[in-house]
Amino acid sequence: MKNSIGSSVILTVWGESHGPAVGVVLDGLCPGIPVDEAYIAEQLARRRPAGPADTARVEPDRFQLLSGVYRGRTTGSPLTILIPNENVRSADYAAQERLARPSHADFSAQMKYHGFQDPRGGGHFSGRVTAGIVAAGAICRQALSARGIRLATHILRLGDVEDAPFTDVASEIERIEAKRFPLILDLEEQAEAVVLAAKAEQDSVGGVVQTGICGLPAGLGEPWFDSLEGVLARAAFALGGVKGIEFGDGFGLCSLRGSRANDPFRMQEGRVVTASNRSGGINGGITNGMPVLFNLAVKPTPSIARTQQTVDFVEGKDAELSLTGRHDPAIIRRICPVVTALTAVVLCDQLALRFGTDYFTQP
Amino acid sequence: MKNSIGSSVILTVWGESHGPAVGVVLDGLCPGIPVDEAYIAEQLARRRPAGPADTARVEPDRFQLLSGVYRGRTTGSPLTILIPNENVRSADYAAQERLARPSHADFSAQMKYHGFQDPRGGGHFSGRVTAGIVAAGAICRQALSARGIRLATHILRLGDVEDAPFTDVASEIERIEAKRFPLILDLEEQAEAVVLAAKAEQDSVGGVVQTGICGLPAGLGEPWFDSLEGVLARAAFALGGVKGIEFGDGFGLCSLRGSRANDPFRMQEGRVVTASNRSGGINGGITNGMPVLFNLAVKPTPSIARTQQTVDFVEGKDAELSLTGRHDPAIIRRICPVVTALTAVVLCDQLALRFGTDYFTQP
Amino acid sequence: MKNSIGSSVILTVWGESHGPAVGVVLDGLCPGIPVDEAYIAEQLARRRPAGPADTARVEPDRFQLLSGVYRGRTTGSPLTILIPNENVRSADYAAQERLARPSHADFSAQMKYHGFQDPRGGGHFSGRVTAGIVAAGAICRQALSARGIRLATHILRLGDVEDAPFTDVASEIERIEAKRFPLILDLEEQAEAVVLAAKAEQDSVGGVVQTGICGLPAGLGEPWFDSLEGVLARAAFALGGVKGIEFGDGFGLCSLRGSRANDPFRMQEGRVVTASNRSGGINGGITNGMPVLFNLAVKPTPSIARTQQTVDFVEGKDAELSLTGRHDPAIIRRICPVVTALTAVVLCDQLALRFGTDYFTQP
Amino acid sequence: MKNSIGSSVILTVWGESHGPAVGVVLDGLCPGIPVDEAYIAEQLARRRPAGPADTARVEPDRFQLLSGVYRGRTTGSPLTILIPNENVRSADYAAQERLARPSHADFSAQMKYHGFQDPRGGGHFSGRVTAGIVAAGAICRQALSARGIRLATHILRLGDVEDAPFTDVASEIERIEAKRFPLILDLEEQAEAVVLAAKAEQDSVGGVVQTGICGLPAGLGEPWFDSLEGVLARAAFALGGVKGIEFGDGFGLCSLRGSRANDPFRMQEGRVVTASNRSGGINGGITNGMPVLFNLAVKPTPSIARTQQTVDFVEGKDAELSLTGRHDPAIIRRICPVVTALTAVVLCDQLALRFGTDYFTQP
Repeated sequence: MKNSIGSSVILTVWGESHGPAVGVVLDGLCPGIPVDEAYIAEQLARRRPAGPADTARVEPDRFQLLSGVYRGRTTGSPLTILIPNENVRSADYAAQERLARPSHADFSAQMKYHGFQDPRGGGHFSGRVTAGIVAAGAICRQALSARGIRLATHILRLGDVEDAPFTDVASEIERIEAKRFPLILDLEEQAEAVVLAAKAEQDSVGGVVQTGICGLPAGLGEPWFDSLEGVLARAAFALGGVKGIEFGDGFGLCSLRGSRANDPFRMQEGRVVTASNRSGGINGGITNGMPVLFNLAVKPTPSIARTQQTVDFVEGKDAELSLTGRHDPAIIRRICPVVTALTAVVLCDQLALRFGTDYFTQP
Repeated sequence: MKNSIGSSVILTVWGESHGPAVGVVLDGLCPGIPVDEAYIAEQLARRRPAGPADTARVEPDRFQLLSGVYRGRTTGSPLTILIPNENVRSADYAAQERLARPSHADFSAQMKYHGFQDPRGGGHFSGRVTAGIVAAGAICRQALSARGIRLATHILRLGDVEDAPFTDVASEIERIEAKRFPLILDLEEQAEAVVLAAKAEQDSVGGVVQTGICGLPAGLGEPWFDSLEGVLARAAFALGGVKGIEFGDGFGLCSLRGSRANDPFRMQEGRVVTASNRSGGINGGITNGMPVLFNLAVKPTPSIARTQQTVDFVEGKDAELSLTGRHDPAIIRRICPVVTALTAVVLCDQLALRFGTDYFTQP
Repeated sequence: MKNSIGSSVILTVWGESHGPAVGVVLDGLCPGIPVDEAYIAEQLARRRPAGPADTARVEPDRFQLLSGVYRGRTTGSPLTILIPNENVRSADYAAQERLARPSHADFSAQMKYHGFQDPRGGGHFSGRVTAGIVAAGAICRQALSARGIRLATHILRLGDVEDAPFTDVASEIERIEAKRFPLILDLEEQAEAVVLAAKAEQDSVGGVVQTGICGLPAGLGEPWFDSLEGVLARAAFALGGVKGIEFGDGFGLCSLRGSRANDPFRMQEGRVVTASNRSGGINGGITNGMPVLFNLAVKPTPSIARTQQTVDFVEGKDAELSLTGRHDPAIIRRICPVVTALTAVVLCDQLALRFGTDYFTQP
Repeated sequence: MKNSIGSSVILTVWGESHGPAVGVVLDGLCPGIPVDEAYIAEQLARRRPAGPADTARVEPDRFQLLSGVYRGRTTGSPLTILIPNENVRSADYAAQERLARPSHADFSAQMKYHGFQDPRGGGHFSGRVTAGIVAAGAICRQALSARGIRLATHILRLGDVEDAPFTDVASEIERIEAKRFPLILDLEEQAEAVVLAAKAEQDSVGGVVQTGICGLPAGLGEPWFDSLEGVLARAAFALGGVKGIEFGDGFGLCSLRGSRANDPFRMQEGRVVTASNRSGGINGGITNGMPVLFNLAVKPTPSIARTQQTVDFVEGKDAELSLTGRHDPAIIRRICPVVTALTAVVLCDQLALRFGTDYFTQP
């Protein structure tokens, strides 16, 4: 499936950083969902560079809805969103085309595409492609919202800044979405300072983000290979920079005994709940009705201004690389709305598979 | 795809813990691969309970090859492996059928299957199903081996026992596979002691396992949604107990600056290599020719003998649960060959997609 | 997907004519559907050779349900059906292994599998594999029946015998299923005579079969590539001997003007119906609520006793072939329940995709 | 997969007749294939209305390559083609929005999309969407051509005009592609006369088209469910108006005995060939190295100017319909390049699955 994900609701991404446009096709979303262009623009704004902690390449993200929308609602046919690339400076990259940026896709792409790939600005590997994902995710979030399902992603760790993990997901989503740096606690300045410190040293930083989803029905996910964990993980690793995923307490569970790691069930107002949520809302790959929680490891941006050792893969010899393009010293702030959007797409797919294609507009 | 994984080489798993048999269908593997029954039996033996640190349910795992093999080689048609369940004591479970085991799939399965699921011994969610995966993986490993690709999985952390991570994958695979407790260092006794200590307290333990793959060609994996990381992650989360995955240094990368996290490229004997391998052999979702490395978080077995709080989900009221079935106090030893096997299946699929269905028998 | 079909309800076939068994895995069918072993046996009996017009190889078709059934109902986990091969005479084929039977899969399989295929009795290409399809289809038919959907397949043309096409599908299904030769009119003897005449001349005959489905809701099928026509066609061509498919009047529509070929809509008891049904119940790839009708072209069995010109593909030279195995002089009678069964599987998949996985047990 | 087809080379179609644009995403085609814009334009011209026998809506088909092309070659990333809709007269349709056109998708789409579909000019069901398919197919044809594979589609029957079937495919492809009405024999005027006669009577005509493919390697196609016949059939039924498909002699085989229907093998210049080609180059779902041949039944265009009986599906009452939009009295001429293009896409997918993703640029 390569650049597509999903079985019932299917997202396809396309475009290159310095080509005419990036975009997506979102197929299979049920007819009748409102397409709120202002909300899409708002989500795109959350992903857009904003301030000294982000790249200097700022795009207006003027999106066009080319198909699948009629009278302000989804038609049920493929919905195509095109976002032109308007701020392109390809000359930045020309000199470096044959020097593999360490820990970037340049060399592995060369081995796969034999030199035919578009190298300008990372080409199809560029984070620029995520603009389309955010736009598609905005529509999916509105579909989910109609069924009472809400989600958001915040920075959990960035340098020595440590945010609180989700505890009351529904209310914390509101807090997160109201901020430029998505955090639950009031640590925005501290977080930005971590990024600026790295930037000042011509370096970059990574971090951990956490996604919380509330309102999902119990019983979602399929053993063995369509476990909700597996499906969300496959999606998450599509995003450049993601090197790990854990559900609930994840790697932290490994040092506990079972008696501590297990989430006891109990009745609460006639509903089965768990007293703790170390499993992140998923048992046996299937939702148990508690909030779904997962963390992503986001590595530091590989593009840094410092001189690095590398190879010239055309000539096959060692070389030094000093990058001059416009880069983010950290993508951790900007990746949050992307993770939320992509997760929203995946959830729409899973819900449509489980409850039918008209699920989001049923009474 | 639910119980199937793969596009070109496709594995389907079936069976329940206390049904007549478990098994797999392995479709699409190229014709002409030797099917070595002794090697399959050897791999199954690695997964089988062996000693006081494992469950008391020991199965002989007498497998039958029902299709897809002719004159000792794969035919190219679906290969079906059936493994009868011979040591079944269903009465152990009867009393507990309506009491959801904490952090087990019982409750979420109930919500999904409405009470029609087979609850005996975990039914289709049972680790028993992994016997078939190991058998299929044994054949896939032999296919990989014909192309110089080797892999193994060892226990990286278990309680306070910490094994060395892979450094020289090819030689360490040999060491690991020679031991009952798969470890690189000589820590077998210490590891077993951790499990027995938990067992003595009617408890269980989890841990971290690490998989290493060497010999993979560079250029394998597809952006965006078939990144090798995403594909391997989807597979890994099929396995009960897996709650996290990280590639290379994974979550450890998040606290580094880019200048430290990046793997510099350099030439070595005419080949491009990286000086370090913090990325785990994958950049941009595509292999770079270095060993592929990933870690899995394996939570403690949820089935413990201690009394636990839970609910009776038929009557909808709080309850106490004291388990009496036969369980593993830790699955960490036994999950290693399963992870290796499932990874081998996924790699065969990826290689066949990239290089064609006859890849494994080409000169 | 090769030996699997479907996205939500997925059928996988496996087995060879002279191997230990044939079988299927049916994954994704919703939990709680009754599995009536007597009904499965009855459907298998309809496919079984019966009389001088069929092959002399008669199998008892003693099927085993290995997984996915608990207390007489589907669990929602993969349902595995195994049917042992009990009447095998492989020596029949030994001499002919390298002589490609004209219009059979021998040569094309050789080119694909490089000689590793199991050639005995056609191996995996054998019609024997359809026994599993019939068993799976029997369960799917019971699921469909719970939603008021019924279907059957009859012989429309066989030599100079011409049956009536479906007009009142619901009642004609009853008539067809009550007969050994599935026909709407009373032409059983004539039909059998056509086959026996061919057999007497060491030859074989083909024909046309027609499938009718009533009770399907309008709105099923997806443009462009999951049109119901496309999905049913892909399934139909899986069956050896099928060389054509047409919906409604199919090729007959090509010689009409639009004013004659169109099916006018009209209201009938508050429901939209069409005055004629030349479109076979499908417009734009989507059901319109009328009975779905399609015809399959079934070529004459390629295995005939007469001497034929062919090649020895191992030595690469011309040769003569005189077959001695046990063959059907016509598969037209026996293919009818297979087409019905496979269509039932496909419909279950389409309905589950459209209305959710619990569709068949919802009130 | 809905609006996508393929596993390795994947085509996604999008757009509506009267929306801003139609287009496709073509994913997975190997890097390095020349993208010849003049050739694409030429193929689009073959599909464009041209003369009194076609619709009066003529579009310039100014296509834009938005992604996946760099320096005139495919990059291996998704290739997006956008074709603006420039000649739109939506007012033609406003009055008819609630009157279901007989044998058109209006009513079945209403049942599926609940009134949210874009009804203007058939919306997403419009033949306008095929412009994107032709553009994508042009690129795929050039990939195939690099491996010596060629194909074309001609009108086999139209009213009482009967073209010769393919006999020497390679040379006949040239003849066909040189003509405005794609025919092997010199019957262009007669064919056009048939269409004009129907048009003069405010009616429409259908016909049969035949596709021929030469140069395909033997051994392509997968039993059971990815038979080449099944895969091509699924694609063909995506096209509006196609109601039947047959391979080789198809339905004609049903009235033959096996001794006449079989294609005897023989050696010719060291290669295995068949003396006749009644099977259309496919045995057991797998190519045998002979030209692949199939016929499609194309029904008469359902949109005719004559008054027809229908229903108003909003008010649920009988009604009369007199169409005033711009329509083709026959699509048979224009469907030929579309069938060729879609077949080319499917063949690229099948070849990439079989021989690897770099097949088309390997030496």
